[in-house]
Amino acid sequence: MTVNVLFAAMYERWKTYENPLKSAFSAAGLDVALSTDLPPEQVDYIVYAPNSEVQDFTKFTRARAVLNLWAGVEDVVGNQTLKIPLARMVDHGLTQGMIEWVTGHVLRHHLNTDLHVNGQDGEWRKEIPPLAEHRGVTILGLGTLGAACGTALARLGFDVTGWSRSPKDATGITCLSGEDGLAQALGTAEILVLLLPFTPQTENILNAKTLAQTPKGAVIINPGRGPLIDDDALLNALDAGQIGHATLDVFRVEPLPRDHPYWAHPKVTVTPHIASETRPETAAQVIAENIRRGEAGEPFLHLVDRSLGY
Amino acid sequence: MTVNVLFAAMYERWKTYENPLKSAFSAAGLDVALSTDLPPEQVDYIVYAPNSEVQDFTKFTRARAVLNLWAGVEDVVGNQTLKIPLARMVDHGLTQGMIEWVTGHVLRHHLNTDLHVNGQDGEWRKEIPPLAEHRGVTILGLGTLGAACGTALARLGFDVTGWSRSPKDATGITCLSGEDGLAQALGTAEILVLLLPFTPQTENILNAKTLAQTPKGAVIINPGRGPLIDDDALLNALDAGQIGHATLDVFRVEPLPRDHPYWAHPKVTVTPHIASETRPETAAQVIAENIRRGEAGEPFLHLVDRSLGY
Repeated sequence: MTVNVLFAAMYERWKTYENPLKSAFSAAGLDVALSTDLPPEQVDYIVYAPNSEVQDFTKFTRARAVLNLWAGVEDVVGNQTLKIPLARMVDHGLTQGMIEWVTGHVLRHHLNTDLHVNGQDGEWRKEIPPLAEHRGVTILGLGTLGAACGTALARLGFDVTGWSRSPKDATGITCLSGEDGLAQALGTAEILVLLLPFTPQTENILNAKTLAQTPKGAVIINPGRGPLIDDDALLNALDAGQIGHATLDVFRVEPLPRDHPYWAHPKVTVTPHIASETRPETAAQVIAENIRRGEAGEPFLHLVDRSLGY
Repeated sequence: MTVNVLFAAMYERWKTYENPLKSAFSAAGLDVALSTDLPPEQVDYIVYAPNSEVQDFTKFTRARAVLNLWAGVEDVVGNQTLKIPLARMVDHGLTQGMIEWVTGHVLRHHLNTDLHVNGQDGEWRKEIPPLAEHRGVTILGLGTLGAACGTALARLGFDVTGWSRSPKDATGITCLSGEDGLAQALGTAEILVLLLPFTPQTENILNAKTLAQTPKGAVIINPGRGPLIDDDALLNALDAGQIGHATLDVFRVEPLPRDHPYWAHPKVTVTPHIASETRPETAAQVIAENIRRGEAGEPFLHLVDRSLGY
């Protein structure tokens, strides 16, 4: 029987996702009618981006699940009209891209590469960095992305500490949790990577108090969510020298406005939300697998716990 | 019985190596008299840097081995007065430091980090790089350093090809060898890393012909030896667009003279021979282990094959 799948995301996404999704459905042996326009009462699954026009889910009377195209669900998880299962995107391409971006920027700061990229003036600046095993890297957030990045950094030799609200385990990482664990995790964070979800509990988790708990000159890397950082507190800590540099990929408002002080600050590197992007080919396979599971009566992958918000 | 060890290197090295060596000898249970000044006929081992004053080994009538402080031996291997075993330095710190530097610069070029480091002008340049699995990285040289870097890059996800003169194996890498293998290895080298030893066979291995065998826009990373590259051919290939960028850590003359065209070239990043440095603490342990082996009649580690030159 044909499964009706609504694609509810910006039109530019449709152009990149239509073919990968059709290929993935076909490869999964699914008979799918995929469209951006279906009568709500005929929709079986909703492939969803939280910035789409669909905000009222009550009219989808027979839909079995909302399959998010993104890892972040903060803009949909609180939607009171959503009663059916919500799955996050956990995409090989997204995880792998994040590992590459985080590892690249951790190494950039560890090796002080900018000194040479910006210093092609004939001066022979021979400073040997310490080995990674003597460099404390802390990751806040041990979900799929945080754990994968932490493990990759530990395999490269870094001394990695991970922190999460509830206790977790990850290969090669010292795992801490809770309020006391946070202070301890920040205390060794020569390089601090933010990969927490955005929830009421994590908003402004990096603030004047927690920034002061890092070693003097610590580097902040934020590929997670913009509101994790109290921006004024970070700018103050950069100006005071408590924080040595910040490389920021995500912001409260994106694109980051041209007059935002981050752009002009000599100790801030802005990157345009490129740390990781869902890749259409691999993401389409995750969507297809979840629809196959739904049709076979098997449990969905990557379900969101709405009481936790992720 | 006391073992007499001559430290034959520049005085500034003595200041950093004296204590680590004494600690390592003591930890290895060796009774060593270590000095920068011993009667040649009483010397049992020579800890050696090729730029030291010692160039005539004939007067060291009872010395059992020359233990090089550096990985590179090209400036001592041809010394006709040297008849006793010569060991290279293979240091955990040196290998690990090289892995970190090479991985950092491969990721820098893979992610095009410079675009953002240099582009803090308010422009939101959202370009998502391909995943590492779609990026061809080729390493010329599969000795200790080349194999270790190749394996680390493959573990991060890169599509890694390695090339060496004689056939070799390395975990996770497509290994090629010989003349035909070189053309094939260069053909997929979007990023090309040079980690060959400097020998008459490898001098100018990167020349007009081999540079033309790489994909258009390839990036060259040289943490190996300066003379591996025909500098004029590289500058021509950069100007012609055949090579997209070169990040160079080693040069025929070091420090690189201020008026060398590499400094001012917009597509060249010069780093001051920092890709990897022997670390005194870990290197001292290698020296101590080789002296322990010599005293116990066991074979030395990391012996140089003087017919091959490394």
